Amino acid sequence: MTPVSAALHDGVAPLSFLLGRWAGEGEGSYPTIEPFRYGEEITLSHVGKPFLAYAQRSWSLDDGRPLHAETGYWRCPSPTRVELVVAHPTGVVEVSEGPLSTTSLVLSSTTMAGTGSAKEVTAVVRHITVEEDRLDYDLDMAAVGVSLTAHLRGVLHRVSTPSG
Amino acid sequence: MTPVSAALHDGVAPLSFLLGRWAGEGEGSYPTIEPFRYGEEITLSHVGKPFLAYAQRSWSLDDGRPLHAETGYWRCPSPTRVELVVAHPTGVVEVSEGPLSTTSLVLSSTTMAGTGSAKEVTAVVRHITVEEDRLDYDLDMAAVGVSLTAHLRGVLHRVSTPSG
Repeated sequence: MTPVSAALHDGVAPLSFLLGRWAGEGEGSYPTIEPFRYGEEITLSHVGKPFLAYAQRSWSLDDGRPLHAETGYWRCPSPTRVELVVAHPTGVVEVSEGPLSTTSLVLSSTTMAGTGSAKEVTAVVRHITVEEDRLDYDLDMAAVGVSLTAHLRGVLHRVSTPSG
Repeated sequence: MTPVSAALHDGVAPLSFLLGRWAGEGEGSYPTIEPFRYGEEITLSHVGKPFLAYAQRSWSLDDGRPLHAETGYWRCPSPTRVELVVAHPTGVVEVSEGPLSTTSLVLSSTTMAGTGSAKEVTAVVRHITVEEDRLDYDLDMAAVGVSLTAHLRGVLHRVSTPSG
């Protein structure tokens, strides 16, 4: 029932450089775990409303088993400001905000909260830069008593664009 | 790369009654808006890990235009306890928890938080009951200065089950 080719809402036009399906690889590390490499896919789509829908999943390069996933929405309250709300399957929710400059942005968490059984994550900072169909990101995290520390770094390529 | 037919993880076995794609209709009201009716689709799936992935969208019965959407994950820390983390495109995140009794459950928000541009939502309580392939729910909400008040009520039917 959802219109499949709604025009992009003006309210997220500054985020149009993020639209599409992205695939690539990344590497992760953290003081509490062994370094690891992963495959990753990210999808950013829209339905004509002032947000982008966001879904991410990653998998082991060894055997394809699912690793992380996250899902949420991107918003753009002004042409130089970006907002992200995300749910994590670890029982954590994240609210992040920050500056947007053409095709690069920084998102710093303003709220991290979790369910009773969730592992404690206290802060996340995401840097993202897009050049044409290449997306570079890194993610720093403070969790389980460790202060803000480099955790993930990846490079994705746009493999399709939305028809919308 | 994700295994398409992983076995359901024991850690979410008590939530297996929720798995599948559900479709139906609902009605909404709130002191600040006109009553409305909507079509709705919910999908609950798994990848063999201890959570269910959750996606919801609703649309106007008048013209099919998208109304609400939400996305997140369900967890089950014990056979009598359910947890939900959700991101809303309005810039809000929700952490909800509560008792699970066979095929009915109550989720009360423990955290509601939002981005700088989000409308203020302070509490959500969800009641869900499943009988075979019929799901009844209602949702109470406290928002924009209004205390906890009935907001949504819907009936969905399971239209497909996951192959996993």
